[in-house]
Amino acid sequence: MDYRRTHDCGTLNASNIGEKVILSGWMHRRRDHGGLIFIDLRDRYGLTQLIFDPRISKETHEKASSLRSEWVMSITGKVRARGEGLANPKLKTGEIEIEVESLQILSKSKTPPFSICDEFIDVNEELRLKYRFLDIRRGKICENLVRRHQAMFATRNFLNEKGFLEITTPILAKSTPEGARDYLVPSRISPGNFFALPQSPQIYKQLLMISGMDRYFQIATCFRDEDLRAERQPEFTQIDLEMSFSTPEELFQLVEDMMSSIFKNCIDVTIQTPFRKMSYRDAMEEYGTDKPDTRFGMKFVRIDDIAERSEFSILKDQLKTGGSVKAFCVKGGAELSRREIDRYTEFVQKFGVKGVAWMKREEAGFTSSVVKFFSQELLKEIQKRLDVETGDLVLILAQQDGILNQAMDHLRRHIAKERKLIPKGVYEFLWVTEFPMFAIDPKTQEIESEHHPFTSPHFDDIHLLEQDPLKVRALAYDLVLNGYEIASGSQRIHDSEVQKKIFELLNLSQEEIQNKFGFFIEALLYGTPPHLGIALGFDRINMILSDTDSIRDVIAYPKTQKAADLMMQAPSSVLPDQLHDLRINVEEMTEIQWT
Amino acid sequence: MDYRRTHDCGTLNASNIGEKVILSGWMHRRRDHGGLIFIDLRDRYGLTQLIFDPRISKETHEKASSLRSEWVMSITGKVRARGEGLANPKLKTGEIEIEVESLQILSKSKTPPFSICDEFIDVNEELRLKYRFLDIRRGKICENLVRRHQAMFATRNFLNEKGFLEITTPILAKSTPEGARDYLVPSRISPGNFFALPQSPQIYKQLLMISGMDRYFQIATCFRDEDLRAERQPEFTQIDLEMSFSTPEELFQLVEDMMSSIFKNCIDVTIQTPFRKMSYRDAMEEYGTDKPDTRFGMKFVRIDDIAERSEFSILKDQLKTGGSVKAFCVKGGAELSRREIDRYTEFVQKFGVKGVAWMKREEAGFTSSVVKFFSQELLKEIQKRLDVETGDLVLILAQQDGILNQAMDHLRRHIAKERKLIPKGVYEFLWVTEFPMFAIDPKTQEIESEHHPFTSPHFDDIHLLEQDPLKVRALAYDLVLNGYEIASGSQRIHDSEVQKKIFELLNLSQEEIQNKFGFFIEALLYGTPPHLGIALGFDRINMILSDTDSIRDVIAYPKTQKAADLMMQAPSSVLPDQLHDLRINVEEMTEIQWT
Repeated sequence: MDYRRTHDCGTLNASNIGEKVILSGWMHRRRDHGGLIFIDLRDRYGLTQLIFDPRISKETHEKASSLRSEWVMSITGKVRARGEGLANPKLKTGEIEIEVESLQILSKSKTPPFSICDEFIDVNEELRLKYRFLDIRRGKICENLVRRHQAMFATRNFLNEKGFLEITTPILAKSTPEGARDYLVPSRISPGNFFALPQSPQIYKQLLMISGMDRYFQIATCFRDEDLRAERQPEFTQIDLEMSFSTPEELFQLVEDMMSSIFKNCIDVTIQTPFRKMSYRDAMEEYGTDKPDTRFGMKFVRIDDIAERSEFSILKDQLKTGGSVKAFCVKGGAELSRREIDRYTEFVQKFGVKGVAWMKREEAGFTSSVVKFFSQELLKEIQKRLDVETGDLVLILAQQDGILNQAMDHLRRHIAKERKLIPKGVYEFLWVTEFPMFAIDPKTQEIESEHHPFTSPHFDDIHLLEQDPLKVRALAYDLVLNGYEIASGSQRIHDSEVQKKIFELLNLSQEEIQNKFGFFIEALLYGTPPHLGIALGFDRINMILSDTDSIRDVIAYPKTQKAADLMMQAPSSVLPDQLHDLRINVEEMTEIQWT
Repeated sequence: MDYRRTHDCGTLNASNIGEKVILSGWMHRRRDHGGLIFIDLRDRYGLTQLIFDPRISKETHEKASSLRSEWVMSITGKVRARGEGLANPKLKTGEIEIEVESLQILSKSKTPPFSICDEFIDVNEELRLKYRFLDIRRGKICENLVRRHQAMFATRNFLNEKGFLEITTPILAKSTPEGARDYLVPSRISPGNFFALPQSPQIYKQLLMISGMDRYFQIATCFRDEDLRAERQPEFTQIDLEMSFSTPEELFQLVEDMMSSIFKNCIDVTIQTPFRKMSYRDAMEEYGTDKPDTRFGMKFVRIDDIAERSEFSILKDQLKTGGSVKAFCVKGGAELSRREIDRYTEFVQKFGVKGVAWMKREEAGFTSSVVKFFSQELLKEIQKRLDVETGDLVLILAQQDGILNQAMDHLRRHIAKERKLIPKGVYEFLWVTEFPMFAIDPKTQEIESEHHPFTSPHFDDIHLLEQDPLKVRALAYDLVLNGYEIASGSQRIHDSEVQKKIFELLNLSQEEIQNKFGFFIEALLYGTPPHLGIALGFDRINMILSDTDSIRDVIAYPKTQKAADLMMQAPSSVLPDQLHDLRINVEEMTEIQWT
C-alpha cells in the first residue's frame, strides 16, 4: 500500500529514456490500436502516454482493457522514446512514452456528468458548480487556483521583505460601518446578542497602528450580505495593509512594486512603474467615471463655450439649466451608418440622456444634420479641440453632469468594445487621487462619506470642513486597472477631535457614535501615530491575471448569485436543537430547490 | 505633513555617529537632569535616547518639557556617542543618543489605564483585553505576534517549496461532522436556512484531492462553539494539509522538516529529526495517555504478575475484577515524608483510584507498611523491572485500565512539576500511531470514531471491520510536543464502499448519511486518489514558541472564556431591522455587563 510516485505526469522527457518509473493519475483517454492499448495518464501537472503491450505483460494488458475514463491507477514501467515522427511537441512529455510493466487500479469512477478531457464543451455553470470537484479537475479552474496561490505567495514574500507583519484579525467581530449589510452570528453564551462577520478589518488594523505595530498586512476574508452582482461574492478576499509614519507617495510606490512582483511571478509580465496619477476631478471630466479604462482613447472634451456660441438650441437649453456639453471623437467612426449611430441614442437614453448629436468628418468637411448649427469657425475649434481627422466621428452629448458622465462613460466603453479598441494583454494602472471627502446620497439627500469615515481630509482643506464640507478633498486614493477599481485607501484621521467632527458632519448622533465607535474614538486618545493604508481586491486582481470575467473562476468553492453553494447544498436547514441552543426562532422557512 | 522617518528606534549605533536623522515614536520615559531633558523614544523596534539641550534649541527644549507619557512625536537631530561610561549594553542603541534639533508633537495621549513602560506590573487580564491596543504596545504580545508572523511565513515558504498550493476554502460553509457545536449564520436570501462556520476544512480538502490538486495546504481559521477551556478559543487556526499518492512516512518527514524550519526561523532552535514514534497501545501502557510528555521519565511498568504472586489482597482483588496493577519509580523520591506521599493518595482519589501504595528504597532495602506483602524474590523483581536505586520511591496503583491510566498520567505530571523534573528549553516531539479506529462513548455506550469518520482503517485490519470493529486500528497519527497534542491526521478512505461501511458502523441512518455526507460519498465515486493529511494546531505551536500557557497571548484580538471581545464589546445586540431582514426572532435577551 505504498502509493508514492517517482514522477508526476508532466515531467518525463528524452533525458529520462531508459529509466524505470512509477506514475499515478487518472485515465484521460484510451486508444486501442494494433493489439496495443494507448492510455493518456493525467494529473494536474500534465499528460503522459502509456503503452500496454501484451508481449510485455499479458496480465497487465488485460487489466488495462478494463480501464474506463477517470479511473485512478498506479503503474510501473520504462521510459522509452516515441517512434520516429510520433513525438508530440505540444506536450511537455511529448518525446516519450511509458512501456507499462504493472498496473494497479486504485479507484474506479462513474461516468462524469460532463467530459473531463474535452476542453471546449458547453457545460452549464450550475452543473459545473454542483460538481465543482470535477470542474476543477478539468484544468482551467485548477490553473487559476495555482495562479492564485502564486499571487498570495508573491504578495506575502514582497510584504515580508518590506517589513510588514501579517496579523490575523477576528472573523467573529463586531459590525463596522462599511455601509453594507452584515452577516450575523448568534451567540449561544449570550443569547440575543450577535457577532458580525467583518466587512473589512478596518478598525482592527487602525488599532494595530495605535499599538505601534507599524506595518501590518493581511490577506483577509471579508463578508458582505448584499444582493450579488456578477462580480461579487458574499465572502471575498482583500490584501489589506496599513502603515504608520509614512506618506501616500511611499504607499503608492510600495503598491506599485507589489503589483509588479505579482504580475511578474504569476504571468511573467513586466508592468511599467510609476503608475499614472489622475485627480478625481480630471477623471470625471475626461472619462465620466472615477475608474477610467485608459487602455483606449476617446477622452471627453467640454465644449460648453462652443455650444454657447452655436445655434444649437437643445445644447443651449441644457447649459441654461446648469447642464454641460461634452464631446468625444471616435477614430474612423465616419464609416458608421446612420442606423448604427442611432443605436447610440437608444443606448444613452437608458441613462437619462435624450440623444447623441453627431458629425462625420469627410474629406470635404463635417457632415450631418446638426452641422448647420455651427459656424465654420466653431467647427474649426471643434476639429482642433477634439483632434479630429478625416474619417472620424464626433459625438456630442448634453445633460446635468452626473447623468451626462454616467451615460458617456457607458457609451465610451460600449463603443470601445464594439469597435474592438481594447488591446489584449495590456495592463493600464492608474491612481485616482483627491476624491471628495463627502457626497450627497441621492436617495436621502444626506451627506455621506465618499470613502469611509476614518479617511483624513486633505491637510490643505481642513479649514473648509465647517464652512463648505462638499468642497473638502479627502486624502483618499483608488488604484484602477483596465477600468476596474482594484484598490482603495486613504490617509486616516489620527486626531480624535477631527474624527469626532467627521462623525458629526455625517449626522451620526452622539449615541450612534458612542455605540458604534465609542471605544475607537477613545482609543485614538491614547497616542495615535499618523497612519494610512489601502485594501486591494484580491479576487478582482486574480480575475485580471486569469483573464476571466467571472469571479467564480478564481475561487475554489464559490457561491452562486443567490449566495448558495450548489455542491455542499448550503445554506441548509438545521436541527431544532441547534436553534434552541441559540434561543432563536425562525419566522419563515424557504425550501431551497437544489437541482 | 511628511511623516517619514529615516530610521526606527532600534537601529542606530556607533556607526551612525554624526548622521542627521528623523525618528518617530512614543514617549516611553522622561528624565530632567541638569537643565537637559532626556527622553527614551520608543517604537516596536526599540528605544532611542533623545537629548533636548536648551543651548541647541531653546524652543525645542521648551516644547519637550510639555511631553507626557505615550505622546507621539517626530524629531530631527544628530546622532552622537554617549558620554564616557554612559553606554547601555542592554540596549541595541545603547552606544548613542540623539541631540534633538526640532520636535513635532504628532498626537497627545491620555494617561493609560496601566503602565506601558514598566515590564513587571500586575495588570488584571480583563483590563488588558479591554485595552488590547495598549497591551500590545507594552511589548510582550507584540513580540508574540511578530513570532506568529514568522511562523506563518516559515510554514508557507516551506510548503510552497515542497509543491503545496495554498487554497482558500469557504467560511460560509455547511456543518461538518467534527463533533462540536457549529456557529450558525442565518441566510437572508433563503430565510430559515443557515450557513455553518467550518470546524475544519476537512471535506473541502478531501474534495481538492478528488479534483487532483495533489498537494494542498491552508493556514485556516476554524470555529467551534464550545464552552471554553483556558486553551481554547471560539475561532482558532490550524495548518491544514493534504496530499495524494503518498504514505504516512512521507508525511511524517514533511511535517518534521516543517517543524524544524518553524523552530529554526522563529526561535533559532535546532530540533532533532526524525521524531520518535510510539504506538497508541504503548503510550497508554507506559504513560497512561495518548499524548505523553517525554521530557521526563517515570514510565509506568505493569506488575500484574508480581501482584498476583504477592500477599497484597487489595491489588489481588483489583486483578480479580479485571483491573491492572502498574507502578513507577520516582528518582530520589525516598526523601519524601509520609505526609507528602499521602497527598498523592488524595490526588488520585479525584480520579477514582482508592490509594497509592509506596515503598522507599533505602540502603538496607525496601521500607514501608506494604513491603511485608512481597517476598524477597518479588522485591528483587520489582527492583529490577523498575530500575530502582537507593534513594528512590516506588508508587503502585491498581484499578480498571481507563481510570488507572488517567489517574497515573495526572499523578506522573503532578510529581514532575512538583519535583521540577521538566527541563526548560527542551522540545520533545513524538508521533503516536496506530490509534484504534473506534471507541465506545462512555455516556451513550455507542460506538464512535476515535478520529473522524473519513479515517482509513489500517490496511491489515480491514477484515476485522465486521467481526470485531473495536480491534481495528486506524491509519491515524497524532503529533505530540511536550505532552500537548499539536497535530492530528490520517490516511483517508478513498473507497466509497469502505466509507459507507464506516458510516453504518457508526450507526448513522441512511437518511443522516445522505443528508450530511450524501454528496461527499457521491464524490468519492468519481475517481478518488489515495490521500492522507494532517492538521496542526497553530495557536498551540505558537504558545510553545512563545513559552506561554495562555492561548490569548498569541492572538492579536482574543476572546474571553465567555467568548466575548472586551475591547470591541462583541457580541452585541443588533437593530430590529437586521433581525427582520433575516426573518429570525430572539427568544431571550441577555444584557451583557461590560466592565
